[in-house]
Amino acid sequence: MTHPPRELVLSEGGRIAVLIVDGLGGLPLPGGGSELEQAEIPNLDALARRSSAGRLQLLPTGLTPGSGPGHLSLFGYDPMTLEFGRGLLEALGSDYPLSGGEVAARGNFCTLAPDGSITDRRAGRPPSEECVRLCELLAREVSLEGASLELLPGMEHRFTAVIGGAGLGARVNDNDPQIEGKEPLPFRGADDISSVTAELANSFFEQARAVLRGEERANGILLRGFSTRPALDPFIERFKLRAAGVAVYPMYRGAARLVGMDIIEPGVDLGEQLAAVERAMPDYDYFFIHTKPADAAGHSGDFDSKIAALEEVDRHIPTLEGLGFDVIAITGDHSTPCIRKEHSWHPVPLLIHSRYAIPVPEVTFDERGVLRGDLGVVRGPELMALLLAHADRLAKYGA
Amino acid sequence: MTHPPRELVLSEGGRIAVLIVDGLGGLPLPGGGSELEQAEIPNLDALARRSSAGRLQLLPTGLTPGSGPGHLSLFGYDPMTLEFGRGLLEALGSDYPLSGGEVAARGNFCTLAPDGSITDRRAGRPPSEECVRLCELLAREVSLEGASLELLPGMEHRFTAVIGGAGLGARVNDNDPQIEGKEPLPFRGADDISSVTAELANSFFEQARAVLRGEERANGILLRGFSTRPALDPFIERFKLRAAGVAVYPMYRGAARLVGMDIIEPGVDLGEQLAAVERAMPDYDYFFIHTKPADAAGHSGDFDSKIAALEEVDRHIPTLEGLGFDVIAITGDHSTPCIRKEHSWHPVPLLIHSRYAIPVPEVTFDERGVLRGDLGVVRGPELMALLLAHADRLAKYGA
Repeated sequence: MTHPPRELVLSEGGRIAVLIVDGLGGLPLPGGGSELEQAEIPNLDALARRSSAGRLQLLPTGLTPGSGPGHLSLFGYDPMTLEFGRGLLEALGSDYPLSGGEVAARGNFCTLAPDGSITDRRAGRPPSEECVRLCELLAREVSLEGASLELLPGMEHRFTAVIGGAGLGARVNDNDPQIEGKEPLPFRGADDISSVTAELANSFFEQARAVLRGEERANGILLRGFSTRPALDPFIERFKLRAAGVAVYPMYRGAARLVGMDIIEPGVDLGEQLAAVERAMPDYDYFFIHTKPADAAGHSGDFDSKIAALEEVDRHIPTLEGLGFDVIAITGDHSTPCIRKEHSWHPVPLLIHSRYAIPVPEVTFDERGVLRGDLGVVRGPELMALLLAHADRLAKYGA
Repeated sequence: MTHPPRELVLSEGGRIAVLIVDGLGGLPLPGGGSELEQAEIPNLDALARRSSAGRLQLLPTGLTPGSGPGHLSLFGYDPMTLEFGRGLLEALGSDYPLSGGEVAARGNFCTLAPDGSITDRRAGRPPSEECVRLCELLAREVSLEGASLELLPGMEHRFTAVIGGAGLGARVNDNDPQIEGKEPLPFRGADDISSVTAELANSFFEQARAVLRGEERANGILLRGFSTRPALDPFIERFKLRAAGVAVYPMYRGAARLVGMDIIEPGVDLGEQLAAVERAMPDYDYFFIHTKPADAAGHSGDFDSKIAALEEVDRHIPTLEGLGFDVIAITGDHSTPCIRKEHSWHPVPLLIHSRYAIPVPEVTFDERGVLRGDLGVVRGPELMALLLAHADRLAKYGA
């Protein structure tokens, strides 16, 4: 079911800013405080005390969101029913706006022995410049019958292959056997349109082998995670919001682009992002503002640098408040506890500030402080309905 | 949808112990405390303060779970979509491992008048030894064409009949008219395979009448609740956990066996159960430990003895903690408030202890104390996903 029902969504109303602090939530050290609890975040705490507060659960209970599903959920889509393949994510992460007719796959350069078996699945991890050269070489020499081929170089041995053409399916197996000493598998399609893609991929593989024959290590390719862009109701149609994404990292610009948001040039940090928001405010009703450093610190397990990242976010809160939005929501796309060095399933602190908030004075903006708030646990795909309601953008249901 | 999605479940990870205190939850006396609130349970309170805490709701809101559905829910199955007939429950309760080809029905010995009408639906409640003799007599004398017949004696007039054979359905009516003065109804099947069963049941009824002709009171049989073992994805396949049940009462061993757990000899009380768990720990990833006395006291409405049962559980908590599990969950399969002398629909206190818990210092382990915890209300079939997550046994969803 689409939530909220589309016929209730109004095309006029207040302006909404959603600040996503990637990896916002954390966990306490044994007997101590969490990252948020130890950080000095007076502006976030004060805003939370003047807001509705609670937690946001992006996926069904116990499931840990990857960034793709986490953001789809934030944007009001059901991440459990939408396919969001690896190839798509990689294309988005390369700032490539995959179109409906294209199939993307994640690629590795690998080393093949003369008998065709894989001796190194990562071709000795070549320098990234080398990856650029290899992608350019293949793009120049390989041609696919009736289809286009784009190669987007990544870090070291990684690239993204985008095959474009009419009637291409994505139900194609990975050719990576996931073990060295074996030959890459032939590509096969699970249905008619995917068989077309599989044939093109087999042709790409054979041509690449020929073109790369003279390379010392990167003389083969492995492709996995074939995927297309899922069919989504555009954000602007579902929520009647002119929406813009302001994210420094390509992956998150890609997620915003996927649901049809415009992309605003973000600058390099949250300060510049907020300046970009201020300039673009006349043209949009909704801003998705994404900030990454807290998540990166969580992944490295560095408590002090996660605290520093959270305190840096806190310093920008007065600026955000000063922009004059009718609704400000602050939350994350998942938790990234330092003690885990990975995402986790724990719901993420959430505040929604508007004239319709129910503030609770005992709230602080951390995992335990928001338990005292009025929102309880909000499910990810419910958030948009709440934001629209707070922005006077949802009609009453029934007379 | 299966929750969690099977492809996310890892086959390696931490060890999990689930202690089910049957009938754990209760209700306050007017103006006073509940059973848990009045009990002295310092170990449970201390553990709850170092754990994630909340409540577990086994069924949809307002529904009171029987023991069968309550346990299915705890084990991660949807009790609202699984048929769990009376005959199956009785067979499991008799420690009989009903197999896929067998049909079980709950039986009563009854008294029939010479004209065939029922004069006593319970045959004067014979002593249980008499029931054993009658079952042995029937088992010796009755034979069904092309099918086997097992008779499991119960208390007083009760027994369980198990008919085994190829192609037997369970959509057979009860022959008990539920009123005295009427004749037992003929058995009829609602489909082809159930008609086979009905014919066997009619033959059993007629032969039983002949064999029991000389009995003073127990000269007839009534059968109801024909049921088969539901087709379930085995627990070990769904959750990739080598699982063992350690329950003193047969019914709960049966519930564990139904989902495919191994059964460990439990001894006679929680102390011996935990000793059995310790011995079996190297061979299993998950233990279901069931303790009954609190529920029994709730059913009898005896506040003091329910408090005593809870305090007895509390004394074993340090032993449980000492076993070295990575995840300990303590909850119940339903509430059994003394003021109700029956199960109730109220969610049951729940704690989950692991390194990923979010402890709240104000929590106590009782109906009102767990409201301060971080878990809120967890739905029964979500519990397994949470336990797997806490045991590092769930992969991230999406990249």
